[in-house]
Amino acid sequence: MPPQVVEAMQRPMVPHRGPEFSEFYIALIERLKRLHRTEAEVLLWPGSGSAGWEIAAVNLLEPGDVVVAGVTGDFGDRFALVASTFGADVRRVELEWGNAIVPERLDAALRAAPGAKAVLLTHNETSTAVTNPLAELTAVAQEHGALVLVDAVSSAGGIPIEFDAWDVDYLFSGSQKAWMCPPGVAIVVAGRRAWERTRETGTHRFFWDMDRNLEMTKKGWTPTTPPISLLYALDAATAMIEEEGLEAVFDRHRRLGDMTRAGLGQLGLRLLADDAYASNTVTAFFPPDGVEARTIIDRMASEFGITLAGGQAHLASSLIRIGHMGWVDDEDIESCLTALNDVLESV
Amino acid sequence: MPPQVVEAMQRPMVPHRGPEFSEFYIALIERLKRLHRTEAEVLLWPGSGSAGWEIAAVNLLEPGDVVVAGVTGDFGDRFALVASTFGADVRRVELEWGNAIVPERLDAALRAAPGAKAVLLTHNETSTAVTNPLAELTAVAQEHGALVLVDAVSSAGGIPIEFDAWDVDYLFSGSQKAWMCPPGVAIVVAGRRAWERTRETGTHRFFWDMDRNLEMTKKGWTPTTPPISLLYALDAATAMIEEEGLEAVFDRHRRLGDMTRAGLGQLGLRLLADDAYASNTVTAFFPPDGVEARTIIDRMASEFGITLAGGQAHLASSLIRIGHMGWVDDEDIESCLTALNDVLESV
Repeated sequence: MPPQVVEAMQRPMVPHRGPEFSEFYIALIERLKRLHRTEAEVLLWPGSGSAGWEIAAVNLLEPGDVVVAGVTGDFGDRFALVASTFGADVRRVELEWGNAIVPERLDAALRAAPGAKAVLLTHNETSTAVTNPLAELTAVAQEHGALVLVDAVSSAGGIPIEFDAWDVDYLFSGSQKAWMCPPGVAIVVAGRRAWERTRETGTHRFFWDMDRNLEMTKKGWTPTTPPISLLYALDAATAMIEEEGLEAVFDRHRRLGDMTRAGLGQLGLRLLADDAYASNTVTAFFPPDGVEARTIIDRMASEFGITLAGGQAHLASSLIRIGHMGWVDDEDIESCLTALNDVLESV
Repeated sequence: MPPQVVEAMQRPMVPHRGPEFSEFYIALIERLKRLHRTEAEVLLWPGSGSAGWEIAAVNLLEPGDVVVAGVTGDFGDRFALVASTFGADVRRVELEWGNAIVPERLDAALRAAPGAKAVLLTHNETSTAVTNPLAELTAVAQEHGALVLVDAVSSAGGIPIEFDAWDVDYLFSGSQKAWMCPPGVAIVVAGRRAWERTRETGTHRFFWDMDRNLEMTKKGWTPTTPPISLLYALDAATAMIEEEGLEAVFDRHRRLGDMTRAGLGQLGLRLLADDAYASNTVTAFFPPDGVEARTIIDRMASEFGITLAGGQAHLASSLIRIGHMGWVDDEDIESCLTALNDVLESV
């Protein structure tokens, strides 16, 4: 985390029903709208990013609703699981890990699911380091009259999102990824059709109720006690993003993604993701034949203090992932690649 | 907040699926068990305290369940509202504000609601500064075979709670009150009968699913990305409580409550709460005749930098509340009373 963000968490607390908080909160919400390129509503909740799956399920879906889920990895799988847990009739489009869901594939799935109420998408699938083509997929879903519900946990703030221009309906993220903050705030953007849908659904909801939250947000209040120190962090982090410039932040992530992939290629390592859809916030690669992923991850940590992640689900022990989102620059990637080279030369 | 807590939030983040986090998390959970005087399960979620109402509703209640709610103020009202929002058949025991619900009253309500599945109680009603007699009320509910579900947001960590000795079933709080932390962590304690009940209820749940959380907690993990900086804060704060000694903390709150009530009495101010059930974490009083509560609150803030709260709901504009929970000592109360005296002399 940037020092400015750590420092922001030490600002003195203010009463969350007072005018000072309201002014702060409204400005934060407005800035988040700009960063999502939208005039739609932005709502915050105390919660991890994965609260976004549940907020979608309880506000925008009803038991029995036909829903098409693009499952491109572990997070897509969980979004589908949450929807089916809440009673939706989920039709999964299962992609081999490392591949994106392409518009033609989504179109075919929607033709096979007439009357589908919604499409569940993972913008950037963290488990496979793939970025799904959100603009094109959204266009396909809209043609079929299905709402587009997007998990943008590892893309928002790092990879371009044009909420209004692409006409997305619902998109969420968490404070802890490219937003450069500690975890604990769920960020939701909801457009016109999503609000219409909330009026149709008769589900039980209170804590996650989008309408209750919006009513309070308009006054500069929150429906429950807000996690103030984390909101201060988010304020500082989003101010840094605006200062660098949102396009410059996206460019930096693009450059870091390119550097990482090129560097791993030069080390002779095989990447998981289809190059046409490779993520600019995370890269996944396989260790050389005969070397355990865990060995490399442990040596990177113990010898260089660099934290890499393993894989998830069926690739848990065979994959290595490098995060390059948020407060990361070229030097960080260079150091990581140099360290990795050292480790590889001696395994 | 104590400086140790502010400082703890700056500890470097560790991966939340690694052994260092697990060890930390298990120790934190064990300490919270000691502080609730229980060997039952303690679960944490990112969320405000009010998540506890919803966690109870989705895990322990089903639509149509008869539930008796002790409504002693605004927070009791909201607990009842959440339960009815999720479809429970809520029988409200409405008390005049300032009064506690006494065992005889709960017993009568339960006789009139045969087969009631649960009793909803607010241990310390923040809106009225009343502490309901939880031990006695729990005994009554158990006699009727109803689960006891307790909002302890403004009592836990400041007012005695004997989860096991009193045989409570479910009790929750949030990190921001007597736990001396920023808001953002919901703390739930659930006993044997509560776990049995979760196996009977067929409600849709995922984020708040107690079983999913417990399964992960046993491994030292969390079901979603944990709000690590806030958990560090909670670790530091609960360590401070254990260092001071839980009984000493309770004694301090008792002394602060007595001091506050005595001091306000000497200033000729009328208290809202029935003295037999007056809270030791918050005190509510009326301004002198002809003086607006807002005038006093504003002058205390602008002239002395002391934050008092107004009332809630129908007493929003006519009541003043002093919080004396968490990181507060005798001198703080003395300064507050001296300042209040000054303000009263010149209104």
